[in-house]
Amino acid sequence: MLTVHHLRISQSERIVWLLEELELDYELKLYNRDPDTRLAPPELKALHPMEVAPVITDAKDGQSLVLGESGAIVEYIIGKYAPDTDLVPGPEHPDFADHLYWFHFANATFMTNGMMQIAVNAVGAQMPPPLAKRVTNAWEQIETRLGEADYFGGSQLTTADIMMVFQLTTSRAFNNMTIDHLPNLQAYLQRIGSRDAYQRAMAKCEPGFPPKLD
Amino acid sequence: MLTVHHLRISQSERIVWLLEELELDYELKLYNRDPDTRLAPPELKALHPMEVAPVITDAKDGQSLVLGESGAIVEYIIGKYAPDTDLVPGPEHPDFADHLYWFHFANATFMTNGMMQIAVNAVGAQMPPPLAKRVTNAWEQIETRLGEADYFGGSQLTTADIMMVFQLTTSRAFNNMTIDHLPNLQAYLQRIGSRDAYQRAMAKCEPGFPPKLD
Repeated sequence: MLTVHHLRISQSERIVWLLEELELDYELKLYNRDPDTRLAPPELKALHPMEVAPVITDAKDGQSLVLGESGAIVEYIIGKYAPDTDLVPGPEHPDFADHLYWFHFANATFMTNGMMQIAVNAVGAQMPPPLAKRVTNAWEQIETRLGEADYFGGSQLTTADIMMVFQLTTSRAFNNMTIDHLPNLQAYLQRIGSRDAYQRAMAKCEPGFPPKLD
Repeated sequence: MLTVHHLRISQSERIVWLLEELELDYELKLYNRDPDTRLAPPELKALHPMEVAPVITDAKDGQSLVLGESGAIVEYIIGKYAPDTDLVPGPEHPDFADHLYWFHFANATFMTNGMMQIAVNAVGAQMPPPLAKRVTNAWEQIETRLGEADYFGGSQLTTADIMMVFQLTTSRAFNNMTIDHLPNLQAYLQRIGSRDAYQRAMAKCEPGFPPKLD
């Protein structure tokens, strides 16, 4: 049985949303952050050497698996359980490259920006200008993209959206960032928030903490 | 024609190495960093809104493409030009999950750690302990993995290695980090450095600047 180990208020919400979109069976285990450090509790840390979420466990094809990294987990679930899903445009699809770009941008650029901000804030400093420019570029690129297409990958929901939305909602809620100046992003988040699968996922992952959609 | 826009001393060396492993035809354009800011020069910035390397340009299947993000470029090239390569273990391969894990770990965790260090160093501070712990965990996990398997994905070279090596060599050369205490990593880098395709790629990307393999 596929099990998702979800740390509350973390990027592991992506995996639950993916599984709800695919309508696959899974078990969900919720973990609360340590109230002092805000880090994962010992029982989640014990699962995987990186000591962060998401982690899935699975037993399939005779292998017992413990897997971390959002992007890897998404590709694993698709490859093993849903190889023909429309959530991943294939090499012949016109959205192939755009989907790949935003799928990787989510963690390699956008989440990295967020982690740099966390690190700099933690030492009481401001982002140095060349790195602050990366942050600005990323938000501008997002707003531009959502003016060109309804979803990051193109005309339909893909795993690029599933990777991107956490930073645009749950994570943003902790940074006091408004998006009043980003109308394309506002409209996009309303589209995402109206999806049954997204609503089911958030109700399971974050009961009592609705996602920040505006 | 597939063109790789390589910023000197940057992660775009990965793409050149991939293409040499696949023995595909491509054009290589080299860009020097601005000597003062160490950032990309205007002609590379003009190619893509993120203003960083790598970028590829391509014209295929009637589409003219400009694509950034290392991970996206690797998956694009494989999907379009080398779908049957052994560099990507498929869903039925025993290395499927391990390959995915390290392929994504390279940028989403390991490069993110490096960017946090760059940001904190730039403001003259030290990494806060919870974030420094992530860095330590990552290096320990790398050394452990390379004691279990000859390559990150398993018994053979995969795109996980192609994503990982830049941070272990070229990038490390700028951080004065020795790996004398990491014998598995030392042996691994000797294996990588002995590959003809890797040697060809580094000779083309960084003439006069051999990669840091010890």
